[in-house]
Amino acid sequence: MGEFELIRQFFQPLADRAVTDQLILGPGDDCAIQRVPPGRDLVFSVDTLVEGVHFPEHYHPEYLGWRALAVATSDLAAMGAMPVCYTLALTLPEADQNWLAGFARGLARASEAFGIALAGGDTTRGPLTVTLQVHGTVATGTGLRRNGAQSGDLVCVSGTLGDAGAALDFLAAPEPSAVQQQVLSRYHFPEPRLFLGQQLVGRASAAIDISDGLLADLQHILQASGVGARINAQDLPVSAALRQVRGEQALELALTAGDDYQLCITIGQEQWSQLPDPVKQELTVIGRIEPQPGLRLEGAPRIAAKAGFDHFGSDV
Amino acid sequence: MGEFELIRQFFQPLADRAVTDQLILGPGDDCAIQRVPPGRDLVFSVDTLVEGVHFPEHYHPEYLGWRALAVATSDLAAMGAMPVCYTLALTLPEADQNWLAGFARGLARASEAFGIALAGGDTTRGPLTVTLQVHGTVATGTGLRRNGAQSGDLVCVSGTLGDAGAALDFLAAPEPSAVQQQVLSRYHFPEPRLFLGQQLVGRASAAIDISDGLLADLQHILQASGVGARINAQDLPVSAALRQVRGEQALELALTAGDDYQLCITIGQEQWSQLPDPVKQELTVIGRIEPQPGLRLEGAPRIAAKAGFDHFGSDV
Repeated sequence: MGEFELIRQFFQPLADRAVTDQLILGPGDDCAIQRVPPGRDLVFSVDTLVEGVHFPEHYHPEYLGWRALAVATSDLAAMGAMPVCYTLALTLPEADQNWLAGFARGLARASEAFGIALAGGDTTRGPLTVTLQVHGTVATGTGLRRNGAQSGDLVCVSGTLGDAGAALDFLAAPEPSAVQQQVLSRYHFPEPRLFLGQQLVGRASAAIDISDGLLADLQHILQASGVGARINAQDLPVSAALRQVRGEQALELALTAGDDYQLCITIGQEQWSQLPDPVKQELTVIGRIEPQPGLRLEGAPRIAAKAGFDHFGSDV
Repeated sequence: MGEFELIRQFFQPLADRAVTDQLILGPGDDCAIQRVPPGRDLVFSVDTLVEGVHFPEHYHPEYLGWRALAVATSDLAAMGAMPVCYTLALTLPEADQNWLAGFARGLARASEAFGIALAGGDTTRGPLTVTLQVHGTVATGTGLRRNGAQSGDLVCVSGTLGDAGAALDFLAAPEPSAVQQQVLSRYHFPEPRLFLGQQLVGRASAAIDISDGLLADLQHILQASGVGARINAQDLPVSAALRQVRGEQALELALTAGDDYQLCITIGQEQWSQLPDPVKQELTVIGRIEPQPGLRLEGAPRIAAKAGFDHFGSDV
């Protein structure tokens, strides 16, 4: 049995732990087999994280395991999907047992938290790269997409924004303060908004997860939907921790920093008013969809100019 | 629009060309959406190819495109599945337009040949690595697996073995001879045995694709099925081209070299006798399944000893 065969056995518990009856065959054969229940569609997304590009060198393997699965699963949340299973394509420079134990532990914690089981994978030798593909299901035809935003819809975001972006400054801090630790945990342990996404199926008109920053990701919705939007930076949800560690820069991070994995959605006024209170409480209205293409940013003239936006309201 | 956004547009034609009604939503949203027809299961497999490990440095990008999709799709063939779609996670050191054009061309040719459409992907910066996940379907419960071999079953392989392995010597040859070109094309352009695999559903008792060499891959079947086998090396299908370029070493390559992506199957005597002639003609009987665990190799005493096999017939 080769070294990499041993590694695969390291991940076997992640498959054995599967509690889903939809994963008919897990790792160990030429393919895995998934049964999609009648009346549901398969939704899937793949994400690659490269060392030194998407996470720092010598990054804690347990954090990496959680983070990699969270980043991928966040795309399921943005479609309103129920998670089912995932594959892991792991490229490693060497088979370090401690590293593998930590990585598998992070994956296991995330797998359990998100209700998703390992279905298969491939382990190869090379520069450290993690590629995860997540599978979920939605009721046929109901998956939340980017192209449904309509003029008059409200623009909303979940949670608070910018925290994970602020954490980048403290990743190498030997003894981070309590408040620094708060934003660090947002970077290390993002939580895909699965339940919220599922609650928005049939209600939101468009959705995306915020991986590249609010301004960038909202524009994906606007372009796919052929509409524009006006948002007010002063309405953005910003955590007390972020204000404390970044002061006046908090708003800029909330607008432009990635890695938060919150949701940005659009929703009709009437649908909004009918949302159950617990769902509404997870969302903050930050603006409105307009027929004129382009994103108009109010309430942050300096940032708007810096980011290439005209704060008087003309097109991008 | 960033550099990598442009790259994604390079691959868009591979998605637009989709002729399947099962891919409901292709690249460009948070997830792709696939509809699995009633009465069928989803089967899927992921494969990573790393430059300098799984293919040579400076390998022709068009060959790489074909080869990467063929290697992944071969796992669908081994399950007897119908291909549907695939995702591409591509990590690139730089966005070289010529390289991308060649790679996309190879992928496009393979996509068309195998009847499989691009569903989505992720493009990142880093050392050249190609991860492909292929999706197919099988009638519920009929996917060919590794664990069904029974004592008395025949062991068969498709095509000829060892050619791709012999090609490794000529990959850098400036002017390969006609016969060298024959084995080279087996390395550059493997053809997953999709139709053959589909014909074997409900007939073969176990199947695997030969990626790591016959001896290694047959043993995966034996271990999964809890049986053993006796095969005769003299019965192995070896091409005239391989005999010509490698002489007496041909048999060793046929037994141990990978990269051929033929199928190794087991099948009951009665099922074999009822196989349609065109299917039977694609297969060569090389041995038989036995109750005693282990692989017994006859007809090649020197190779058996070298590979750690006792050619007198005792266990591995």
